[in-house]
Amino acid sequence: MDHLLYGCAYYDEYMPYERLDKDLAMMKKAGINVIRIAESTWSTEEPEDGVFDFSHVTKVLEACEREKINVIIGTPTYAIPAWMAKKYPDIMVTDKSGRRPYGARQIMDITHHAYRFYCERIIRKLMEVVKDYSCVIGFQLDNETKHFGTSSENVQQAFVSWIKKQYQGDIERFNHDFGLDYWSNRINSWEQFPSVRGTINGSLGCAFEQFQRSLVTEFLMWQRSIVQEYLREDQFVTHNFDFAWKGHSYGVQPDVDHPSASKALTIAGCDIYHPSQDDLTGKEISFCGDMTRSLKKDNYLVIETEAQGFPEWTPYSGQLKLQAFSHLASGADSVMYWHWHSIHNACETYWKGILSHDLQENAIYREVSQIGKSFEALSDKLIHLKKTNQAAIMVSNEALTALNWFQIPGGKTSYNDIVRWIYDALYEQNIECDIIWTDETNLDAYKVIFVPALYSAPKEVFERLSAFAANGGTLVATFKTGFTDEHVKVNCDRQPAGLSECMGAWYDRFTAPKNVGLSGETFGLSKDELQVQDFMELVEPAGAKVLAFYDHYMWKEYAAVTKNSWGKGTCYYIACKTSSAYIKKLTASIVKEAGLWGWKQEIAFPVIIKEGVNQEGKKIRYLFNYSGKEQSVKLPKEASKVSRVLKEEGAVLKKDRLTLAPWGFVVEEV
Amino acid sequence: MDHLLYGCAYYDEYMPYERLDKDLAMMKKAGINVIRIAESTWSTEEPEDGVFDFSHVTKVLEACEREKINVIIGTPTYAIPAWMAKKYPDIMVTDKSGRRPYGARQIMDITHHAYRFYCERIIRKLMEVVKDYSCVIGFQLDNETKHFGTSSENVQQAFVSWIKKQYQGDIERFNHDFGLDYWSNRINSWEQFPSVRGTINGSLGCAFEQFQRSLVTEFLMWQRSIVQEYLREDQFVTHNFDFAWKGHSYGVQPDVDHPSASKALTIAGCDIYHPSQDDLTGKEISFCGDMTRSLKKDNYLVIETEAQGFPEWTPYSGQLKLQAFSHLASGADSVMYWHWHSIHNACETYWKGILSHDLQENAIYREVSQIGKSFEALSDKLIHLKKTNQAAIMVSNEALTALNWFQIPGGKTSYNDIVRWIYDALYEQNIECDIIWTDETNLDAYKVIFVPALYSAPKEVFERLSAFAANGGTLVATFKTGFTDEHVKVNCDRQPAGLSECMGAWYDRFTAPKNVGLSGETFGLSKDELQVQDFMELVEPAGAKVLAFYDHYMWKEYAAVTKNSWGKGTCYYIACKTSSAYIKKLTASIVKEAGLWGWKQEIAFPVIIKEGVNQEGKKIRYLFNYSGKEQSVKLPKEASKVSRVLKEEGAVLKKDRLTLAPWGFVVEEV
Amino acid sequence: MDHLLYGCAYYDEYMPYERLDKDLAMMKKAGINVIRIAESTWSTEEPEDGVFDFSHVTKVLEACEREKINVIIGTPTYAIPAWMAKKYPDIMVTDKSGRRPYGARQIMDITHHAYRFYCERIIRKLMEVVKDYSCVIGFQLDNETKHFGTSSENVQQAFVSWIKKQYQGDIERFNHDFGLDYWSNRINSWEQFPSVRGTINGSLGCAFEQFQRSLVTEFLMWQRSIVQEYLREDQFVTHNFDFAWKGHSYGVQPDVDHPSASKALTIAGCDIYHPSQDDLTGKEISFCGDMTRSLKKDNYLVIETEAQGFPEWTPYSGQLKLQAFSHLASGADSVMYWHWHSIHNACETYWKGILSHDLQENAIYREVSQIGKSFEALSDKLIHLKKTNQAAIMVSNEALTALNWFQIPGGKTSYNDIVRWIYDALYEQNIECDIIWTDETNLDAYKVIFVPALYSAPKEVFERLSAFAANGGTLVATFKTGFTDEHVKVNCDRQPAGLSECMGAWYDRFTAPKNVGLSGETFGLSKDELQVQDFMELVEPAGAKVLAFYDHYMWKEYAAVTKNSWGKGTCYYIACKTSSAYIKKLTASIVKEAGLWGWKQEIAFPVIIKEGVNQEGKKIRYLFNYSGKEQSVKLPKEASKVSRVLKEEGAVLKKDRLTLAPWGFVVEEV
Repeated sequence: MDHLLYGCAYYDEYMPYERLDKDLAMMKKAGINVIRIAESTWSTEEPEDGVFDFSHVTKVLEACEREKINVIIGTPTYAIPAWMAKKYPDIMVTDKSGRRPYGARQIMDITHHAYRFYCERIIRKLMEVVKDYSCVIGFQLDNETKHFGTSSENVQQAFVSWIKKQYQGDIERFNHDFGLDYWSNRINSWEQFPSVRGTINGSLGCAFEQFQRSLVTEFLMWQRSIVQEYLREDQFVTHNFDFAWKGHSYGVQPDVDHPSASKALTIAGCDIYHPSQDDLTGKEISFCGDMTRSLKKDNYLVIETEAQGFPEWTPYSGQLKLQAFSHLASGADSVMYWHWHSIHNACETYWKGILSHDLQENAIYREVSQIGKSFEALSDKLIHLKKTNQAAIMVSNEALTALNWFQIPGGKTSYNDIVRWIYDALYEQNIECDIIWTDETNLDAYKVIFVPALYSAPKEVFERLSAFAANGGTLVATFKTGFTDEHVKVNCDRQPAGLSECMGAWYDRFTAPKNVGLSGETFGLSKDELQVQDFMELVEPAGAKVLAFYDHYMWKEYAAVTKNSWGKGTCYYIACKTSSAYIKKLTASIVKEAGLWGWKQEIAFPVIIKEGVNQEGKKIRYLFNYSGKEQSVKLPKEASKVSRVLKEEGAVLKKDRLTLAPWGFVVEEV
Repeated sequence: MDHLLYGCAYYDEYMPYERLDKDLAMMKKAGINVIRIAESTWSTEEPEDGVFDFSHVTKVLEACEREKINVIIGTPTYAIPAWMAKKYPDIMVTDKSGRRPYGARQIMDITHHAYRFYCERIIRKLMEVVKDYSCVIGFQLDNETKHFGTSSENVQQAFVSWIKKQYQGDIERFNHDFGLDYWSNRINSWEQFPSVRGTINGSLGCAFEQFQRSLVTEFLMWQRSIVQEYLREDQFVTHNFDFAWKGHSYGVQPDVDHPSASKALTIAGCDIYHPSQDDLTGKEISFCGDMTRSLKKDNYLVIETEAQGFPEWTPYSGQLKLQAFSHLASGADSVMYWHWHSIHNACETYWKGILSHDLQENAIYREVSQIGKSFEALSDKLIHLKKTNQAAIMVSNEALTALNWFQIPGGKTSYNDIVRWIYDALYEQNIECDIIWTDETNLDAYKVIFVPALYSAPKEVFERLSAFAANGGTLVATFKTGFTDEHVKVNCDRQPAGLSECMGAWYDRFTAPKNVGLSGETFGLSKDELQVQDFMELVEPAGAKVLAFYDHYMWKEYAAVTKNSWGKGTCYYIACKTSSAYIKKLTASIVKEAGLWGWKQEIAFPVIIKEGVNQEGKKIRYLFNYSGKEQSVKLPKEASKVSRVLKEEGAVLKKDRLTLAPWGFVVEEV
Repeated sequence: MDHLLYGCAYYDEYMPYERLDKDLAMMKKAGINVIRIAESTWSTEEPEDGVFDFSHVTKVLEACEREKINVIIGTPTYAIPAWMAKKYPDIMVTDKSGRRPYGARQIMDITHHAYRFYCERIIRKLMEVVKDYSCVIGFQLDNETKHFGTSSENVQQAFVSWIKKQYQGDIERFNHDFGLDYWSNRINSWEQFPSVRGTINGSLGCAFEQFQRSLVTEFLMWQRSIVQEYLREDQFVTHNFDFAWKGHSYGVQPDVDHPSASKALTIAGCDIYHPSQDDLTGKEISFCGDMTRSLKKDNYLVIETEAQGFPEWTPYSGQLKLQAFSHLASGADSVMYWHWHSIHNACETYWKGILSHDLQENAIYREVSQIGKSFEALSDKLIHLKKTNQAAIMVSNEALTALNWFQIPGGKTSYNDIVRWIYDALYEQNIECDIIWTDETNLDAYKVIFVPALYSAPKEVFERLSAFAANGGTLVATFKTGFTDEHVKVNCDRQPAGLSECMGAWYDRFTAPKNVGLSGETFGLSKDELQVQDFMELVEPAGAKVLAFYDHYMWKEYAAVTKNSWGKGTCYYIACKTSSAYIKKLTASIVKEAGLWGWKQEIAFPVIIKEGVNQEGKKIRYLFNYSGKEQSVKLPKEASKVSRVLKEEGAVLKKDRLTLAPWGFVVEEV
């Protein structure tokens, strides 16, 4: 792949009337150079069991060959035809609420043998049809695959085998690790293992969800192995990972283990949907981009993002441009919209594409065209942007699941909220970072590592983190970190277990704060900004310096934030959830001391700065205005001289003062 | 029927002790001249399968013959006996949540053959028993019939036949119209049509609900055909239609197609329940009355309305009178309470009748007696009031259902909210109107037609509306009108599809407003009153005059309200949901220009004015005070002279100033 | 039992590693003298069907014999092993939502024969094992037993037999009493009685719940009969009753009939959990204590209460002491924490015991140790405290259930809210009271009886209450009292039925207040404090004096509070729900007139005073400060001289002024 991909999903099958030629002509005119096809329409491709009709696919491919538009082929396996559900009713997934009825997509049992038989057949048929088209540059395995909560009897049995294998059959050790004596849940034989659908044992529940995630990895690896047989050397294999959803892409995906699933791919890909209009901040573009880039420590594809999206998201003029370049600034090599046209029936009618339902050129199309032309012109400069970040955030699916089972008091603050509380503080201060997982061994690549609420992990992870600090790194862990082991059994060691020593601090009690503030280091913040939220541990220093105490008549002797020298490095423990304002100030002071503070950090949100090195070895710098108001910032000498402005939208540099129009930006070679 | 009916439902079966004679004596004394019986007590009438006992019915009929009280007989089919559910468990309806357990009423499958067998037998037995009583003036078919969500396997199959027949077997056209290629939902054979219980295709979902409504019509037509065999010439057949419920009667009934179902009746009837005490506005009395009157363009029966009702509704002194005369003012020929006595057991214990649980004369009974006497005295003057309205509102069950599937962003504003937003604005300005449905062909009878959110309709409807305007009418359509065709497939034409030309305006984008106001014509309203709510289309004029723009930094170039000359008439397009204050001002300006504004419109809510022509050809005028405060209004010369005051409650006319006591009113012959 | 019991639940089975000796040593050191064991771990005691392993039990007993720690043995029947659910799937309870899956505790059908077989076998095996240990001082039957909503087919049939027996087969009388003609629910034969799971008949619903409660009684009586066979004379039998739950113990338990179930016990016991930190008021300790003491009119055991509890409850320093002595002040002879250690797995991980998860001495343990020492020192003085209260509150499970079926408008105010509205008013004014049930015949033991919302009761109860007043007592009844009979059929008599005569007042209408205040006796309260809440009856006096009228333009002629002389006594009727402020003032004025007001009542919450007589015949007085602020109160002469201060925590008496530290208290012999 030697040029930026700019494109959209395209569904000839959904068109209300024949318009393929017109659509491709409009795309060409707009600079769209890639489309994704075929991934949603199994029932069109196989209208009856064993009867195939790929005419829509070949028709589009023929036209794309002609028009020189690249194509990504998606395997159509995420939405099954009605005849299949009729023939094998138990292909429909059985989740906690029972067997799901036919209708929606993504509601089959991905482990079902008949489903697998049909998947393999349709994939092979499709691959045979498409493999020789030169316009086909890559494949997408399935679509936003998940386990869909599958928990039918066969899945339960597979889970038991999985556990049994892990324990090499030692049922006593298993009962002990999972605490199954509690409430008479002990299991005496692998054969009598009850369904875990009703379990109240979080260790068991979390293990089951981990097992379910492993099914997703296995499924994608299996699809890859089939596709592999047909793959040309010039073709890539990808998948569109998506993220925890909170009305938009938000955090770590609870149902997929991205790192292991990404092993099925040659290039990582993702779907990013985010708030728009006055709520557009760029945070999700950055967070999801950082996460996807970190999977293979390489560039990635944005396979779906919004054109018009929901009615609430209809973009303001200029926002699509800002978004497109923001993706590149995080290391994306593609921006692809979901989708070309707005759909006229069914449940995504109001998830609008580039074209509105009237299928005419509109304001969106015109802005897309401007982006298309810029991408074409700047492809060589902007593709393959490499990033070397000195900060990282460690995340974990196991911690996420465990904190769903054992919620923060009040139930309002999830694991992802804590991750985003840290991430957003860094983002707003232009501290770029990588996302790492608990199996990361190259910790010394970073100067600062943030560990938000790592509630469940093996002891060995904390040893590695402790060693990172001893070795000179700055380790920042928050409340809930280290509380349980990999089986979500609470550790008997002093808390934060595994880190208490390097933190030089410990606690044995915690509570939900009511009218609790912070004293000590208060950064000049207001009383409201100093309020502790949702959870606080009653930390006592054992060597550490207390940066902040709790401000409360009964808890005032306990520490809220501590700092400890450890070997050559430094360890910070943040024992409570604070306001956004406080965590920003605190992280600022931490990274300053770690030597990561400079002029870019002084310029804060809504002006966002991203940098990387392009394939020519040149530094590329993006400056974005994420607001509806003009922003004017003073640049230091070093930053006010650039080799070349590659692209600007309402950016004016006068001496050392850069003025950015509302939702404007500039791309510089420096 | 040559006199006003005033009465109540009566359940001898529910009485805690024998009191029939006492009850009838109390009724006589109060001027009650009709009771409805027999419609709830199948298990009493047929205690065992095939064993009948109509002794309660005949006992009441004998007494009514004696006391000269009219009787309406209801068929008892809406509540099945326990033995039937025991014998045929699958008579219990299967809806989306599964098979319903026995207990409540209205939870059987109205298409079930065994149920139909039992219905027919009990109806025939009952008819045989009652047909010769002269006191029996009419019949009510079933009770507030609906489809109860029936969606069992047999109903699914009937639905497929219904669709197949509509499409004359053309499955390709069906797949295309319903967009079933989407998410692999395509159906390849009528035999493999899956159950639609889990469908995510709104076209299919809406068609299924339309089919379910057709089952109600078919059921009532079938009951009528049985009753018909026994019907005397002097007897009527009616049914008590009810309305969408929002804690009270509120809007178009989603589960019944009133116009087609009313073909089973000789006179339309309805049940109207409304807020009370300080929340009594008369709106529901007027709206539901207008709708029921419009069904057969004739007078109608109010078969149920509240006496005491819920605890929240215990009426203030005077309110029952105000309500009773309000019903007449809308064209009702009856006012009947649900019900005579309050019930001592089960789930309607707190839905109180005229008598409280102690069954003694109470304040309610005394007020009922006053109404009874007035009705008796004024029957000839007030019965059969004819109305000729120049404004109409077009409503549609199909639009309602479709907007449930495809909700207004935020999910708070339903189709009925939009209908009532328009209706209430007219009501509060004393602009009386009819309700019409999309198959109405006599549009030229009106000067102004309002079309709220007609989201789904065949093209032909919009042609008719456009022609109405071209012909000199004033057409007022709101956002969402014309968006989809009759299959709820979004139109590819410019929006508002079918009306874009006559409106001289179009849009291809829309959004959910945040901090969006209105500029241009603002009627002197406050900033709050000018806020746009929930939904806005970004309209661009193409010939139309823009009456109001959006007041927002990014949307200010788009139109919120437009006005266009079209042929001999005028077309208004309201592209967004506004405050009540704004729509009142806007509709006022529209009807003024259409020549429908006069002194009655100047006198606004809480003083409500209704008029009609009685059987003597005299104009009858009602003036109501819908408030707890005395109201004093100035009347024009023409209105301050009346031929005769027929009834007044706290009304004083001094020169040209009419003063109405709290909850007072006056009825005049003018 | 001749000494105060101080202890905790102990689960050797749950320990992450072997620490029994260490735990018992820590207990001894802390003054803990009793543990409860064995009640949760059936699967450990019987790992396979018929294979028993009581090694954990005997190990703990051996150690306790050695260490002289008392043991209460709980039968382990509330949590079934997995193998049992696998073998007999229908042992899992079927409630309204269907068959529950295996996992949690307390989800079996307590009537199931196989379950009973297994229960009896494990109980007998356990009894054989433990019966000869001298450290075993008593037994707990099951654990917080309830019926778990059991409503499977066999339970339905048993219910029919139960009803049939009550009606001696007279189905007509049954249909009449239950009003089953309504909506065709009539039952013609006992054989065709449908399942009541879907019933809309509240009489039937309430009867079914009463039947379900009787299953709990029967189950506990049955367990008692087994245990009895092994019981030594020195051993007691108890059970840990719990209470309606509102985030904490709150009110009358809807699922158990405490008075009848307590017949299975030799000493009543209960579990009390309550808010903590700044929300600690002592109300639940007092209410639940009064209720449990009233069961057998004797001292009782607190078998479970919180140590650390939920994170929200982590106690402030001093609160555990305050709580422990508060239990004694209500007549408890034990304080036992749930539980010794915090659990490392499963759903109660965050319901923390004395020790935190690190199992080390902590702040909680240190406070427990102080309490343990005090209890040891003061046992003879504080054990067996006898109370003689002159006020009582009459409660009823039947009224509670009925008011769940027939809710107060708005649905926010439950029966228990009304009970607590009265109880808390008394508590905050130091008016100690007993709780009595409707079958109480010794009413004359009291000077004042409060009857909150006794919605359903046989006529005879009201006759007894009326006679109590006639006899010189003060009877205070609230709205909703007397409305229905024992079958929840609304009475036809004048309301409040059965009390209308003695109250000298009646009503036939009621409503939900909006902007309704109180006039007449307003106690100088603010407008807000005079607002009527949720429900009001429109009472008319018939002899009674009206203390307060409604302040509303339409209801001002109706009474809100009345007072009537009746025989030698006085009757008050409170026709509406008032603010807490108003009911406090009103109850104060009532008890004053009844002669129950003194210096203790003048000193109000947060200073709480409790008294009783100890086994030496001495009066013991407790004064507690339930607040985070120092409280200083002036004592009358009689109170400022005490024989002996038994225990004080931050209490200083200077002349006649007692100063109590935050959360401090003093125990005096007077």
